[in-house]
Amino acid sequence: MENTFIINNVWMMLCTALVFFMHLGFAFLEIGLTRQKNTINVLFKNIFIITIGLLLYFCVGFNLMYPDSFNGFIGFSGFGLEAPLTANGTLDLNYNQGYTYWTDFLFQGMFAATAATIVSGAVAERIKLGPFMLFVIIYVGFVYPIAGSWKWGGGFLDKLGFYDFAGSTLVHSVGGWAALVAVWILGPRIGKFDNSGKPLVIFGHNVPLATAGVLILWLGWFGFNGGSVLSANPELTSITLVTTCLAAAAGGISSFLTSTILYKNYDLTMFLNGILGGLVGITAGADVMSPMNAIVIGLIAGIIIVLAVALIDRLQLDDPVGAIAVHLMCGVWGTLAVGILGKMASFNQFLNQLIGILAYGILCCLTSFLIFFLMNKTVGIRVSEKEELEGLDLHEHGMNSYSDFRMNEH
Amino acid sequence: MENTFIINNVWMMLCTALVFFMHLGFAFLEIGLTRQKNTINVLFKNIFIITIGLLLYFCVGFNLMYPDSFNGFIGFSGFGLEAPLTANGTLDLNYNQGYTYWTDFLFQGMFAATAATIVSGAVAERIKLGPFMLFVIIYVGFVYPIAGSWKWGGGFLDKLGFYDFAGSTLVHSVGGWAALVAVWILGPRIGKFDNSGKPLVIFGHNVPLATAGVLILWLGWFGFNGGSVLSANPELTSITLVTTCLAAAAGGISSFLTSTILYKNYDLTMFLNGILGGLVGITAGADVMSPMNAIVIGLIAGIIIVLAVALIDRLQLDDPVGAIAVHLMCGVWGTLAVGILGKMASFNQFLNQLIGILAYGILCCLTSFLIFFLMNKTVGIRVSEKEELEGLDLHEHGMNSYSDFRMNEH
Amino acid sequence: MENTFIINNVWMMLCTALVFFMHLGFAFLEIGLTRQKNTINVLFKNIFIITIGLLLYFCVGFNLMYPDSFNGFIGFSGFGLEAPLTANGTLDLNYNQGYTYWTDFLFQGMFAATAATIVSGAVAERIKLGPFMLFVIIYVGFVYPIAGSWKWGGGFLDKLGFYDFAGSTLVHSVGGWAALVAVWILGPRIGKFDNSGKPLVIFGHNVPLATAGVLILWLGWFGFNGGSVLSANPELTSITLVTTCLAAAAGGISSFLTSTILYKNYDLTMFLNGILGGLVGITAGADVMSPMNAIVIGLIAGIIIVLAVALIDRLQLDDPVGAIAVHLMCGVWGTLAVGILGKMASFNQFLNQLIGILAYGILCCLTSFLIFFLMNKTVGIRVSEKEELEGLDLHEHGMNSYSDFRMNEH
Repeated sequence: MENTFIINNVWMMLCTALVFFMHLGFAFLEIGLTRQKNTINVLFKNIFIITIGLLLYFCVGFNLMYPDSFNGFIGFSGFGLEAPLTANGTLDLNYNQGYTYWTDFLFQGMFAATAATIVSGAVAERIKLGPFMLFVIIYVGFVYPIAGSWKWGGGFLDKLGFYDFAGSTLVHSVGGWAALVAVWILGPRIGKFDNSGKPLVIFGHNVPLATAGVLILWLGWFGFNGGSVLSANPELTSITLVTTCLAAAAGGISSFLTSTILYKNYDLTMFLNGILGGLVGITAGADVMSPMNAIVIGLIAGIIIVLAVALIDRLQLDDPVGAIAVHLMCGVWGTLAVGILGKMASFNQFLNQLIGILAYGILCCLTSFLIFFLMNKTVGIRVSEKEELEGLDLHEHGMNSYSDFRMNEH
Repeated sequence: MENTFIINNVWMMLCTALVFFMHLGFAFLEIGLTRQKNTINVLFKNIFIITIGLLLYFCVGFNLMYPDSFNGFIGFSGFGLEAPLTANGTLDLNYNQGYTYWTDFLFQGMFAATAATIVSGAVAERIKLGPFMLFVIIYVGFVYPIAGSWKWGGGFLDKLGFYDFAGSTLVHSVGGWAALVAVWILGPRIGKFDNSGKPLVIFGHNVPLATAGVLILWLGWFGFNGGSVLSANPELTSITLVTTCLAAAAGGISSFLTSTILYKNYDLTMFLNGILGGLVGITAGADVMSPMNAIVIGLIAGIIIVLAVALIDRLQLDDPVGAIAVHLMCGVWGTLAVGILGKMASFNQFLNQLIGILAYGILCCLTSFLIFFLMNKTVGIRVSEKEELEGLDLHEHGMNSYSDFRMNEH
Repeated sequence: MENTFIINNVWMMLCTALVFFMHLGFAFLEIGLTRQKNTINVLFKNIFIITIGLLLYFCVGFNLMYPDSFNGFIGFSGFGLEAPLTANGTLDLNYNQGYTYWTDFLFQGMFAATAATIVSGAVAERIKLGPFMLFVIIYVGFVYPIAGSWKWGGGFLDKLGFYDFAGSTLVHSVGGWAALVAVWILGPRIGKFDNSGKPLVIFGHNVPLATAGVLILWLGWFGFNGGSVLSANPELTSITLVTTCLAAAAGGISSFLTSTILYKNYDLTMFLNGILGGLVGITAGADVMSPMNAIVIGLIAGIIIVLAVALIDRLQLDDPVGAIAVHLMCGVWGTLAVGILGKMASFNQFLNQLIGILAYGILCCLTSFLIFFLMNKTVGIRVSEKEELEGLDLHEHGMNSYSDFRMNEH
């Protein structure tokens, strides 16, 4: 067996582990920025997403995303996994130079669940658990893999020349568009806006865990972007990690400075979301940017975060964790940046990036609108006012997340 | 030096790091599912186990588990480590094709401490610290390595044809049997059963950390099972990670569905223990199962968890974290599954598995009974009623785990 | 491309990820051991350090630490990064046998921020945020890289024969000296000493997170020491991980026993700081020690921790997290140990180690004194009494770290 192949596969398996670990990052971030009374509900959603996500990707997702024969828009190679075998029944290692069939499935499967996790944060504290689980099944099982096939599966956007290295659009915006639609249909939490429509602050209940979530996500991004090289190529993997980390750092500092200038306050939440904005922003072009490009992308992402959070508030949309600002806005920015900065920058590339963004925007808005609209008209997607006020933990789970602690009334 | 060897060793070292990290997972799970007043005690036990465990494995464990000359039941190659050297004094790299002598020691050492950690959860909130530490020293230092030598050290069960890839029996049941014996001798916590013997719920005090614990354990299992291949063989390592993750996912979903059907409640704790049950279940045969086999193993493990928790309650045993259900019951199931599903399935193999399970059951029950019984008759193993009610943190450690927070009285 | 190079680079990138993750460990440890009212402030400092640290290391640090031409005391190769290229414009992989230029930058950049993080813990709960950020910029951007260049950049201490494998002195003491100076200038927290100068205990508010911090730091040390081999050399990397883990275990057990004997109390905080002391102690010579040497180093480090904490209290210095005991005292001990134990032990080496310790002590005390003294005389470095009593979170950040929880008054 060739050693290069073994090394590549080791790298890809470890990147898979890091991407898996991002699910703890998302869970910590989401509970940290929401209220104690909905904590178990948030954790339940996140645990559901990673488990059902893997099973669905096994059942249908992988073969929807990477179909054998393909018209460029939708294809399917059948249920379950069928590993390529050699004549004598062992795994055919000529499948790919960077990883085995099994590693490929698992790495991509870890990505699949991410898109739904993004939505989870935006709809937190007021969505019914049952309908949300149904949304996850449809979105992770079908919409995400079909969307993914358009580019990573070799579909029409790939042929067009659209570029998205690790998923500013394919993962983050795909989640972000659905978050936007869901938040709009669902309406804001009780108490988020006063009678005149002025936004009020609803504080998160565990800032240490929110901070831990961001650092865990940053760590996970070593695998998310580093693994998207699809081999252990030393030049590409190492420049990718450098651009990823510098964009994160620049995004954080920029968001911190922008919010300090605008609001005269050292706002930790903005700092954290700035880091995530930088990470999402670099993701589309992490392998084609110079370190300086990465810093520019991060700096702009950090400013976008602060302005987007204000804009979303003004539109009377309620996104408790800032998912739309981070994953949609910075996802769009990062995707466009591939046409503006770095090795691939050109007007033609910029147009291709724009077309890709629009194509995904239309697909995701349409499908997520259909899902949430139909559920809303039938079973309803929002919990009762009583349940929202008393907390979803009590009503849906009959449990308290911190049973020995005394809580403030509110 | 051969590159394959360097790759293998890198993989094994990183798996070692992941297995080490499981100790944070165990600690978080155990404190999350118990009460605030015993948190420091739980953490102290866990920190003691990993530190003393490594030192004991250095002093005696490694040479008990992998003796040079061996009658198949017990052997010992001497105190401390003695690395094999070449003629010119450097480390002899022909020791093994997958790792150096040092990597071997450290990987196996990280496993050793795990068995005691399993017991720690079951006896939480009422065991005296001193006697528990003594149990750990004997069990990790002597019982676990001798038990391990029977199969992984090439002992009589290995010769028989018993199969346990990464330790459903050798690690998890070895811990699980001791947990069962300890819980039986120790008796339930005050307030766990009412006067008529009906079990009452004692809620854990920090569900976010319990959830984090499970995700960290899942991450650690990438190393626990992935490293048990003992090389970076691409086919074996990658199928192992796939079966591991699918069993975890299936175990969680199955436990969630079973408990929702039985109890009409979205129970996050069951979901979490279902994931762990799936992980323990796949561990014995992670390298010989197809993805579909892994899902079946997980689904059954998830059901076992829900039923076992109810059974343990009915037997008036008090296992605060569900360690017996997860590690013993699913460990037995996973070990038997090697004879039922996958490449090795045969009636003969099933019998071998059964013999192995019985052999370990007898050894572990006998030794742990002796240890706990003798300690109970002499120094006593249970804290006073006053101490149990007021909390072990106050009495054994004179500290409070969350000193700035106001707590509920109970 | 040569496979050995690819493997080495994979190892180094993963070690980089582990060192990055240490920043979560430091953050958890520091908030866990301080009070709830200053939690956001502590997290803000830590997030600032890792982000600004990477950007500064990009701007000036890397080229200060590894200058092209060098008089042995100070050198600088220019702003930003300039990757070595081959004739046809690709990255020149002959830069080093162990890693690419990009990996080198990122691994070293992750180290750079660590020194300031050490100081952060010592000055917690009373330093003004603005001046602290200024200190970080100067210390991480300039002092640390210049200090580093003296040994790792090939400067005069390297030529002398001073040895510091992974930074007992270059990282930990560099942070520790500044912590000592800062704590001395800043004065103790209100309530730390009574009128007669007797030290009082100010309990940390979240012991589970402090414990998690230590386990995360231990995990990170796999990369910190393992990566300092600067390649994946199987013998060197694996013995390094073994000595690292055994020293950590021995440090913890020794600290636990010492404090139990002296104070008749199972003190978890001492146990944890003992582990860190062992890790800091082994860092200077992790690659030249036998396992038994490592255990001796850890055992002594554990005793040093307990005595040093008492000494610092007696000197009426207030170091909330024990940073001076862990990073300075055990850093000095570990550096000296290279001359006493292991392969390099000799009287001559001992003298070289002493000279290195003194050189760094002088540089760090002088520079940190200058920075803190000047800031203290101009803008002031300590928050007002009112702010200190009410908490820095309220005054500097207008936020509460656990907004739904009821807190004790104090």
